[in-house]
Amino acid sequence: MFGSSPAGPGEFELIEQYFRQPGAAAALESEQGAILLGIGDDCAVVDVAAGRKLLMSIDTLVEGVHFLPGTEPDVLGWRSLAVNISDLAAMGADPWCFTLALTLPRTDTHWLREYSQGLFRLAKRFGMHLIGGDTTRGPLTLTLQVQGTLAGAPLTRSGAKPGDLVLVSGTLGDAAAALRFLDLPREAYNDAQQYLRRRYEYPEPRVAIGQKLRGLATAAIDISDGLLADLGHICERSGVGAWIAPAQVPLSAAIRAELPRDDALQCALEGGDDYELCFTLPPDKLRHIQNWVEEGLVTLVGEITSEPGLWLRDPSGQLQVTSSRGYRHFE
Amino acid sequence: MFGSSPAGPGEFELIEQYFRQPGAAAALESEQGAILLGIGDDCAVVDVAAGRKLLMSIDTLVEGVHFLPGTEPDVLGWRSLAVNISDLAAMGADPWCFTLALTLPRTDTHWLREYSQGLFRLAKRFGMHLIGGDTTRGPLTLTLQVQGTLAGAPLTRSGAKPGDLVLVSGTLGDAAAALRFLDLPREAYNDAQQYLRRRYEYPEPRVAIGQKLRGLATAAIDISDGLLADLGHICERSGVGAWIAPAQVPLSAAIRAELPRDDALQCALEGGDDYELCFTLPPDKLRHIQNWVEEGLVTLVGEITSEPGLWLRDPSGQLQVTSSRGYRHFE
Repeated sequence: MFGSSPAGPGEFELIEQYFRQPGAAAALESEQGAILLGIGDDCAVVDVAAGRKLLMSIDTLVEGVHFLPGTEPDVLGWRSLAVNISDLAAMGADPWCFTLALTLPRTDTHWLREYSQGLFRLAKRFGMHLIGGDTTRGPLTLTLQVQGTLAGAPLTRSGAKPGDLVLVSGTLGDAAAALRFLDLPREAYNDAQQYLRRRYEYPEPRVAIGQKLRGLATAAIDISDGLLADLGHICERSGVGAWIAPAQVPLSAAIRAELPRDDALQCALEGGDDYELCFTLPPDKLRHIQNWVEEGLVTLVGEITSEPGLWLRDPSGQLQVTSSRGYRHFE
Repeated sequence: MFGSSPAGPGEFELIEQYFRQPGAAAALESEQGAILLGIGDDCAVVDVAAGRKLLMSIDTLVEGVHFLPGTEPDVLGWRSLAVNISDLAAMGADPWCFTLALTLPRTDTHWLREYSQGLFRLAKRFGMHLIGGDTTRGPLTLTLQVQGTLAGAPLTRSGAKPGDLVLVSGTLGDAAAALRFLDLPREAYNDAQQYLRRRYEYPEPRVAIGQKLRGLATAAIDISDGLLADLGHICERSGVGAWIAPAQVPLSAAIRAELPRDDALQCALEGGDDYELCFTLPPDKLRHIQNWVEEGLVTLVGEITSEPGLWLRDPSGQLQVTSSRGYRHFE
């Protein structure tokens, strides 16, 4: 039992059949490079196109910690890849390929089919290929590593300058709001709750926004720990501070319908599961994304300061000190 | 709890301090490429040297499945990286860098210190850098992805030809033998048992052998599932068969001292935890590694056949059909 064999004879073949990607052979060469060898040997082998940097990110979802036992496998397939692609988006990279380390308590063909469907539905959207993996027996744990490429300089957390604008994509707090009624029966959901729940289950990595921000944004991060915490990471790495105007933080109609404003704001400032982007932009670059601002795709929420720290700014312009640990700690 | 936050505030910093690699900044550029950005941003960013292919392998070790609860963290640090480097070795690649997805039930500073020591002791041997990772709370699970590079063609599983010799590195079965007394108190071990136990705990990835085999071997694999199973993988992917002469399979003095010959042979044919290499070689290439054969570093154990299947060949030349599933199933 304590040897190298993770699953019984024949189980591997069974498992692998769910991860043979439909149509994968069609597009193994792209401007990003060539996938020379995928699943089936000791390593995957790729050739990164000349002049392109390779970006990698690894993330784990654990049952009972990052998702409830019994979560639909289709949701897990999507989510486990989405949270990784989101890291590529935050650096402005083009998604390319990924590996999957899947730890399963048992071979469950229904689970495998549904999981792989959710996974490949999102992979297909970005033309991503599964190039390798490992399947082991144990408590349900999903670890993926994504690879992306980039011809220019990556967006990092460390380039924010005093006076830069702080912007976020989409609306914030939706997924955190959904966590509040995750245990209610789905049939009892109203439309707003359905919307919020889907925002939690099927986050949309902001790849196109990240790509567009190359050469414009001075710093970027995906909001996985909450706006305050992740903006805090940018500030720390950039050696700056920032203020946020809570009144400007974009809230969806659904969260406003479901929660008192103060609760909605707490979700928006502390909730990370939306996987939106937070980025900083010199004011003179704002015109390059003016159409997005007008459409509400990105929203101006604050400004970088030379003095370290995080502040909340009320409509009268008063600043109140806050903490990356949370919105309410200082109320 | 079911949000994105895997560990309490401050725990990340605590955990990360154990994974700041001593002296890592010193050698971020090499003939393999440049590590432009390591731990601390959304992705790691690397630049693969022109003309080099990138090789990747991901593997998971789960507590209670791949190792006993209570296994020394130093052993786990070494082993979790070794099993991955072994995949690079099997393809003839030069080890380069790795990522670590660590799922821990609690923040245990003793565990983290010892684990990182075992990990970096092996990493240092191959000049490997930890470039990124994820730390989550949950049942103890260690997932690593290694990256290596290669200027020429990788060794694969699929190039074996009828008439090729089958060779293995080192001695086989030692780690599998160690599993038989893993629960005995260490103080009661004799020297042979100590030796076998160390073979299980601290496998030595055969990187130098893999590198030397580039352009010589027609196929290679690391023995993680056992010689029969892994040679079976080569045969399947190459569309060939093979025979093995059990009498020629290299056994250590320790395994011979500890186990009856038949048990030792079973360990050698079915045990994978030694992480030795199995490779195939056209007979006219044997002279290139003649010194290794003479030193016993590699041993000739069989031959590739055109007819699919696996056979055991006794000293009189009689072939007996066997199975990649195991040595004894056909006895």
